[in-house]
Amino acid sequence: MDFSNKFTAELARINGAIARLAPAPPADAPAGGRRLAEAMRYSLQAGGKRVRPMLALAAFEVCAAGRPGVDPLPCAVALECVHTYSLIHDDLPCMDNDDLRRGRPTLHKRFDEATALLAGDALLTEAFRLMATHYDGDLSRALSRTLADAASGARLIGGQMQDILAERGAPPSAAELEYIHLNKTAALLEASLVCGGLMGGAGEDALALLREAGRRLGLAFQIVDDILDATADTASLGKTAGKDAAAGKTTYASLHGLPSARKIAAEQTAAALDAFRSLPGGGAFPAWLAERLLNRKN
Amino acid sequence: MDFSNKFTAELARINGAIARLAPAPPADAPAGGRRLAEAMRYSLQAGGKRVRPMLALAAFEVCAAGRPGVDPLPCAVALECVHTYSLIHDDLPCMDNDDLRRGRPTLHKRFDEATALLAGDALLTEAFRLMATHYDGDLSRALSRTLADAASGARLIGGQMQDILAERGAPPSAAELEYIHLNKTAALLEASLVCGGLMGGAGEDALALLREAGRRLGLAFQIVDDILDATADTASLGKTAGKDAAAGKTTYASLHGLPSARKIAAEQTAAALDAFRSLPGGGAFPAWLAERLLNRKN
Repeated sequence: MDFSNKFTAELARINGAIARLAPAPPADAPAGGRRLAEAMRYSLQAGGKRVRPMLALAAFEVCAAGRPGVDPLPCAVALECVHTYSLIHDDLPCMDNDDLRRGRPTLHKRFDEATALLAGDALLTEAFRLMATHYDGDLSRALSRTLADAASGARLIGGQMQDILAERGAPPSAAELEYIHLNKTAALLEASLVCGGLMGGAGEDALALLREAGRRLGLAFQIVDDILDATADTASLGKTAGKDAAAGKTTYASLHGLPSARKIAAEQTAAALDAFRSLPGGGAFPAWLAERLLNRKN
Repeated sequence: MDFSNKFTAELARINGAIARLAPAPPADAPAGGRRLAEAMRYSLQAGGKRVRPMLALAAFEVCAAGRPGVDPLPCAVALECVHTYSLIHDDLPCMDNDDLRRGRPTLHKRFDEATALLAGDALLTEAFRLMATHYDGDLSRALSRTLADAASGARLIGGQMQDILAERGAPPSAAELEYIHLNKTAALLEASLVCGGLMGGAGEDALALLREAGRRLGLAFQIVDDILDATADTASLGKTAGKDAAAGKTTYASLHGLPSARKIAAEQTAAALDAFRSLPGGGAFPAWLAERLLNRKN
């Protein structure tokens, strides 16, 4: 099968689901409700890579041979809502203070800080609303719990907090940098694969493989992000390039050097491929996605 | 029964559950994780009125004659997490820019803006984690959905957005002010009562009564808040008094005058009492709570 065509088709399916499921204000909503929905859609529909929904759909498909009744798209959209919220809040002046995201002004630049804060809050809430609306009790509970664990203060938000502290204080050690990446980035990639598995009825062994693949993939993904920040230009990235070096930020690239950072990313990707290929369904498309993420240019 | 003693006992039970269930960092957490948990506890344990957990427990008790296996406390804590998150974000400089909350410096004053932003995000996530961890599939789903609807861009966050726009633009009409209160304040009070009912196995009729009572109570609660802002002092409020007038903000008190505002609050409370008293279990304690909220001094 031509995975490149499949990727394009899946991307269209994901973007269609986002357009359909993203909050739209009721016709009689006052100005605040319209503004908020407009802000949420501005960020959700800025044309990201859709890595998390794509991984969820791929994991679902590998596992779902016997479970045709479940629609994975609302969950895929929920994962993108959480990712988008985390970017919006991360771009705020009190955090990374960034002006450009996905090739467009960041949300607080396009609207204002209060609107960006609230739109982020609403997107996080919307993710849990989707999980609680589109799945039956046990599956809904498992998906919500997986998402809440990944987005919690112990993981995604804990990683962001540690990242902020690292920027303010002493440069992080290699172990602290790994902690930041495993939580700030890998947690939600792991959760995306696990949610796909849960929707597909995966057993404990398959879920453990998906978790392992997500952890490896997340680490590789963030290292590639750091390498691209150091080597690509703003136009191809769609966000400000060279920010890490300008801020004196410690990354895998600065700590280990570019060749070693590339090697670690490739090793982590190889470990993710091993885990995918051990899945009952073979995991060929998830493995293709993992290689694509390693070799991406933005 | 002496409801005053009951209230004190319930308050202790709620505060005990918050102390037990609020996120604590694992012993080996890095500095970021410890800071985040400390910030979340600083705001959660600042000694608020615990109105939302109290209403949830009261509604649970009225309905729960036949459902002894459910522990309402994790849900009660989840509701307080959402309320606390909304206060933390509302106090930020880009929103209300407030320095004092519950008699202490606001979180961004005590820590910093980034920590307050992230602690709020983590508390919202924690609420859904509690709902997905402590209840079985169908109940977990119903609680999550109720909470997500109430906290969504269509309700809580929509009300906050409208409130911000009203402060920046033309003073709101009476209808717009009611919209703000019904969403910014009443939505979560409604959800608290409905969650209590859901945990207690309430039927559709009882849930509708709880929703109606919450709507009325929420409106009354916010009007009393506005009246206290205009008439009480900072020391008794535990937050900056006279803010609305200083900011030229339109409230029920400024729009309708203090006597009319007091009358509307009393009428809304009376309507809430009617709804509570129509509940199968009689609703005497919820009704006592509603009267207490009307006559509160902070």
